[in-house]
Parts: sequence; C-alpha cells; structure tokens
Amino acid sequence: MILVGELLNSTRKKVRAALEARDSAYLQDLARRQAEAGVSYIDLNTGALLDREIESLQWLIRTVREVTDCKLSIDSPNAEALAVGLDLAGPGAMINSISAESQRYATVLPLVLKYGAPVIALGMDDAGLPETEATGFETIARLVERLERDGVKREQIFADPLVRPAGANTQIPPVVLDVIGRVRAAFPGLHISGGVSNVSYGLPARKLLNRAFLTLCMSRGLDAAIVDPLDRDLMAEIAAAEALLGRDPFAMNFITLHRAGRLEEPS
Amino acid sequence: MILVGELLNSTRKKVRAALEARDSAYLQDLARRQAEAGVSYIDLNTGALLDREIESLQWLIRTVREVTDCKLSIDSPNAEALAVGLDLAGPGAMINSISAESQRYATVLPLVLKYGAPVIALGMDDAGLPETEATGFETIARLVERLERDGVKREQIFADPLVRPAGANTQIPPVVLDVIGRVRAAFPGLHISGGVSNVSYGLPARKLLNRAFLTLCMSRGLDAAIVDPLDRDLMAEIAAAEALLGRDPFAMNFITLHRAGRLEEPS
Repeated sequence: MILVGELLNSTRKKVRAALEARDSAYLQDLARRQAEAGVSYIDLNTGALLDREIESLQWLIRTVREVTDCKLSIDSPNAEALAVGLDLAGPGAMINSISAESQRYATVLPLVLKYGAPVIALGMDDAGLPETEATGFETIARLVERLERDGVKREQIFADPLVRPAGANTQIPPVVLDVIGRVRAAFPGLHISGGVSNVSYGLPARKLLNRAFLTLCMSRGLDAAIVDPLDRDLMAEIAAAEALLGRDPFAMNFITLHRAGRLEEPS
Repeated sequence: MILVGELLNSTRKKVRAALEARDSAYLQDLARRQAEAGVSYIDLNTGALLDREIESLQWLIRTVREVTDCKLSIDSPNAEALAVGLDLAGPGAMINSISAESQRYATVLPLVLKYGAPVIALGMDDAGLPETEATGFETIARLVERLERDGVKREQIFADPLVRPAGANTQIPPVVLDVIGRVRAAFPGLHISGGVSNVSYGLPARKLLNRAFLTLCMSRGLDAAIVDPLDRDLMAEIAAAEALLGRDPFAMNFITLHRAGRLEEPS
C-alpha cells in the first residue's frame, strides 16, 4: 500500500492553531512521526487559513523539511498554492488534487505536466458527486482517459472515487466498493486511492469502521490511501489485509511487523 | 450474518477435559455465553473422545439444553453420531457436515433428507482439498448440484470453501476469496459459510488476521461463519462490515450495538 499521512491538515483544529501560531515543534513532531510510521507521502494542507494559505504553506514546507526527507503531498484546490508548493517541496511531490471540474482541470493540468508529478484525480466533474456505480465509474474513466490524452502517464494517476459517509446513506459505501472494482478491472497500472476515514463521519466507533472499510477497499483493488498513520490498529489491519490478499509473500512483512511489536492485539 | 459458535469443540483442551470430567457448569457457561452473544447455532463436537464420542455427545446435548434453547450444530464426520445428535437436538439443528467424499456423502445425505436440516457442505471430494480457484469452484458446484438433484433445497445448503492457513501458503487465502465470489455469483440463495480462524493458523496476531479475513470473505458473499462469538473485536468487526456492505440499513444495528457498549474501541 502507498500511504499518504493525513495529519498535517489545517481543517484539524490543533494543526490550524499551530499554523497560526507558527508552532514549528508541534508540526515537526507530527511530520516526523508520520514518516517513521512508514508513509510514502506527508500531506500538507493550509487551506483553512484562507488568504494566508500560500504563505503558510511555504512556511510549513520549510518547517517540515527541517525534520524529514519524506515526499510531500501538496493539498489544495488552488493551482497557485499547488505551484508554489511544488516549487518548494522538491522531487517526487504529489499533487492533491485534480478533478474533472472545468476550472480545476484547466489550472492544475499544466502543473501535473510540468512536474511529472503523481496526482490524485478526484472522481467528480461539473455535475458534482456521482451517486451510482455507473456514473461513479464513468466519471473516473473519462477523467483518466482525458489525462492520458493530455500527456499524463497512467502510473502517475491516483484515481479517487470519493469516499462518502455511510451515516448519510448506507448504500453509498457498497457503490464506492463497486466503482473501485470496476476501475481496477478497466485500467491496469492505474493507482486507486481514497480518503477512507470519510466513511465513518457522523457514526460512532469511527476507527473500527475506517479499518473495516479500508480492508474492503483493498480487496477491490485500492492500492493507496490517505490515512492517519499513527493509528496503530489501522496500520496493523493494513498489514493483515496485505498478507491475506496475497500482497505480502510468505507474510514476511506481517511477521516482521509482529516482531517489531507493531501488531499488538487489542486486549 | 448467520453465526455458529465454535467454542464447544472437543479439540479444545479445556473443553475436552470438561467433557471427560462431565463438568457441566463449565460447558453450560460456554453455551450460555455464546447464545447471549447472538449466535444462530451452537456447534457441538465430541469427536476427540473417540469411542466415547456418541455417549459424550448425548450427554453434552442434554447438558446444553438445560441452559439454552439456541439451535445446535451437530459436528461430526460420523453419520451415526450425527443421527443420534439430530434425534436429541430438537428442531432446526444443523448438520456439520457433508462433503463430496463418497462414503461421507452416502451416509450423511439420508440424514439431511430425513431432518430437512441445514447442512454445511465442505468443498472437498475423494481427490482431497482443491488448490485453485477453478477446482475449488467446481468441487463446490458439483456438490451443490448433486445435493439439489438428490432433493436437498438450496437454502438448506451452507457451502464451505475450506479456509486454509495463510502461513502455509499466502496464495491460498486469495484463492478462497475468489472461490467465494464465484460461488456467490453462480448460486443465488445458497448460503456460504467458513471457519475463518483456520486462516491464521501458524501466524502471529491471529485474531487480527481472523477479523480482516472475515471482512474480506463477507465482501465476496460469505453470509455465515463459524466463529468465537466471545471475541468482542471480531463481533464488532462483523457489525462494521455489515454496515459498510449495505446489509444494515441506516446502520441501525451498528448504532444499537454501540449504545449497548459492544463496539468499544481498542484503546
């Protein structure tokens, strides 16, 4: 699994306060711990600071870079912020995100091409969020095909079916699972990613739901996810799912994590 | 999910000792707690007592019946033990199990027909355990079709693809998942069951693996399982998977279990 650490996001109250106070120690600790937990990317989002988004992003990138070389994911719907972030973030940074919405596509595509960056491609267009397996698949399929026509390599693209809360509609998570399965079958080599924790919004026992849903998404072909890598139970469940899905030959990684004390059973 | 409680099995040391000592209090407590945890059937196995299997089974059924009306699953490869058990167990008891092995099929089929009982149908024949998705599916398909030709109703049949340890071969669990998916698609109305805890045999963090594998099996169409219903984390994961797979409208059961304090998060 390719994991993106989600904790440095300004929609989280403590992170926002730390950004406003320029509390580098708090933010560097979150960056360091996510890197140590084994993420491939650390997501950085300063959007909640509104007109201070860009200067905060620049400061945050420099601050995080003091403590880790982990690749970054620059998280903004704003192409100007993405461009500034990608310039600073160094090689291999991810773009979070493009979509099939007209303006976003037109402004973000040049950055994807300029940096050759991996890019999260959200399955939504000017019509909004698809509600069925058919429209969910078609929205992603059109976006992937358009990106490829425009010169983006398939292996750069992380298609995201937009996980939505089960609490609002318990029929939506099965639709998302079906979309993942259909996208996986139709586009070999494509990455499929998702922000699984959205599934539990508004319900109790959120971490339990997040763990089970990530396992379900992986079984349909999800190979990347935006997660809280400090959630040990979630990380353990990912390792278990990889072993059970044949993605961890001889369960070597699973056994190694066990020996390192990282799979402790909840008592 | 249709759950069969697995704890009253003579291959478990403490149960065997309690059976040998006729320790009714210990065994009744296990029966009562499994029933309270919400299983549909309590499995009873006295096979490890060898030539005392049948008398022990008779005693165990009477002993369990003193404390619960929960339906029973009579667990033996021996048709004589099954017959004695079914006579005593009362209406609705399950037969665990039939298979396509010649002698077992010939001796158990008459009991399935006589009692109209739900029956676990193991996906193995005289050639042994299938190793591939194709042979795994074909073995179950032939067995189901033969049972139906012989007068067994499809909804009586709980096909079991025989979960085997990931530790012995990490490519086997994905095969079992594919078999479940193919059987589900081919035989609407059939129950599909499994003893998921076999998957973790020989590996560390067994409960973690069991939970994740049960979720994976459910996503492919498993609707019954032989489990330890006193494993709270497993029961919580089943509730989560049902909510996320659209089998718990409005997540009402999930929310009810949460209110009853049965979904506590591991800390």
